[in-house]
Amino acid sequence: MPVPEFSLIYRYFSDLGRGDAVDLSVGDDCAILRLAEGERLATSVDTMVAGVHFPADSFPEDIGFRAVAAAASDLAAMGARPLGMTVALTLPETDELWLNAFSQGLAAAVAEYRLPLVGGDTTRGPLTISVQVLGALPMDQALLRSGARVGDEVCVSGTLGDAAGALAFLQDKWQPTPEHAEYLLQRFNRPRARLDLGLALLGRASAAIDISDGLLADAGHIAAASGVKMCIQPDLLPLSPALSSHHSPEQILQWALTGGDDYELCFCLPAGVQMPAGCVRIGWVAAGAGVDCGLAIDFPPGYQHFSD
Amino acid sequence: MPVPEFSLIYRYFSDLGRGDAVDLSVGDDCAILRLAEGERLATSVDTMVAGVHFPADSFPEDIGFRAVAAAASDLAAMGARPLGMTVALTLPETDELWLNAFSQGLAAAVAEYRLPLVGGDTTRGPLTISVQVLGALPMDQALLRSGARVGDEVCVSGTLGDAAGALAFLQDKWQPTPEHAEYLLQRFNRPRARLDLGLALLGRASAAIDISDGLLADAGHIAAASGVKMCIQPDLLPLSPALSSHHSPEQILQWALTGGDDYELCFCLPAGVQMPAGCVRIGWVAAGAGVDCGLAIDFPPGYQHFSD
Repeated sequence: MPVPEFSLIYRYFSDLGRGDAVDLSVGDDCAILRLAEGERLATSVDTMVAGVHFPADSFPEDIGFRAVAAAASDLAAMGARPLGMTVALTLPETDELWLNAFSQGLAAAVAEYRLPLVGGDTTRGPLTISVQVLGALPMDQALLRSGARVGDEVCVSGTLGDAAGALAFLQDKWQPTPEHAEYLLQRFNRPRARLDLGLALLGRASAAIDISDGLLADAGHIAAASGVKMCIQPDLLPLSPALSSHHSPEQILQWALTGGDDYELCFCLPAGVQMPAGCVRIGWVAAGAGVDCGLAIDFPPGYQHFSD
Repeated sequence: MPVPEFSLIYRYFSDLGRGDAVDLSVGDDCAILRLAEGERLATSVDTMVAGVHFPADSFPEDIGFRAVAAAASDLAAMGARPLGMTVALTLPETDELWLNAFSQGLAAAVAEYRLPLVGGDTTRGPLTISVQVLGALPMDQALLRSGARVGDEVCVSGTLGDAAGALAFLQDKWQPTPEHAEYLLQRFNRPRARLDLGLALLGRASAAIDISDGLLADAGHIAAASGVKMCIQPDLLPLSPALSSHHSPEQILQWALTGGDDYELCFCLPAGVQMPAGCVRIGWVAAGAGVDCGLAIDFPPGYQHFSD
């Protein structure tokens, strides 16, 4: 049931809940969505807490956009067609200016990811945004973590480590040039969930995951689910010029291997399958277990978000 | 992606995610659910914050059960068949004992409401539980708020005001007998979402809503959505012996009219449609707007949860 704050969001953006699959949007006890014949439902939930997953002083527009992007990224990693989403918003106080800005970020993400906002609720408490995404998959297809086979190529989209580099900048740990800083902050605040890539990989990739916890951790999930070893060549990792401008090659490598929040896809391609545009090969699938990047490194085991 | 705490929940209850409609449960980027041919998806999200929607010192079992019941109640109000749910849990700290107890409440609700837990995440922060329910509806049927017609009967299930009476007891505002106190606390901590009643009303009731904000407020939502007046006869409201044991008839009436959290259904039946068992007529639908209970009352406008 909408409470005043949610009504407020809808006051700003009356068409936020409209979409091809939406039979009934916000305003009743449930929303009603239609799948096409022969489709299944894919769903995931992703929560962001202020001061944990983003700096508490982030722009509300960015908080709104980024929360949706992170959840949409899970649909991308399954190869699902976006249907809609619900948002559970916990707010410390009613602040119309903040809500207006937050709603603008939400609206941008609704349009970008074709995810109409069909329901939600607002509760009083420390700032937390929980986004539940709903997507559609063909009855007999999905990009799972468990399909990687020995001999497949390991690939990623985009560039890696940018969000971690942005966080380090926000925490005053280094000072990129203004242009590079702007690029990195954009990567952190406005990540691009790879929904179109996910759809393109359906039926072609043998396994996929989105990189939210860092390449090593997420490739490790594919390795574990598929019962294989993921071999990664660090010199093949795609890096942005902005990240590459850091003085320490070791730091850059650490960000690229363990930095999360990039929301790129890591996927496996059987031999002979063409690489999609904007993606590169970074290694191969071998017999064994775990992730092997050929380095005796002593990185933190998992990605630390803004403040875990 | 499951984080350690969520894995812990699954360690206790390995079959929490199994269900007829579940193709893929927790462990990949999304869960995958199947609807039957000719069905649509019904979805809703419901968030509970400690100290707002329940006393912070509630038993973790009750917190888990009640959060699911409140969300499942939205499926009941639509007449939807339960498919599954996801849970976004924000926790102040990792406490294995607390999580074990919470998981037992979740497991009880999974079984009671046939809602396998197919996904979720756990984040660090003040205790908040956000439950997203997924259900199925026939392509051409749903219990909406907008279908009430002049001449319909207004009906409710169960008894009203019990949860509000329980809260008043928890806040030391009155002292029922031990038996009555136990009954009322059970009604507050273990509400029964009326999923079977919702399914039975599909195709028979003209409108329905679950009573989460209080009868007057929720009947008002039907009135607004349907463009009618809901006429309610206070002397027909179903009351439990426990609530009726309060010394003040006016207080009892206030609880029954404005108390939320009972999760009973309020619905409208066209003339000639048989009343389901356990339900009573409390009034009728007339031309006009709003809710008329024939009283010049000065109650608080909306239900106050534990602490709004």
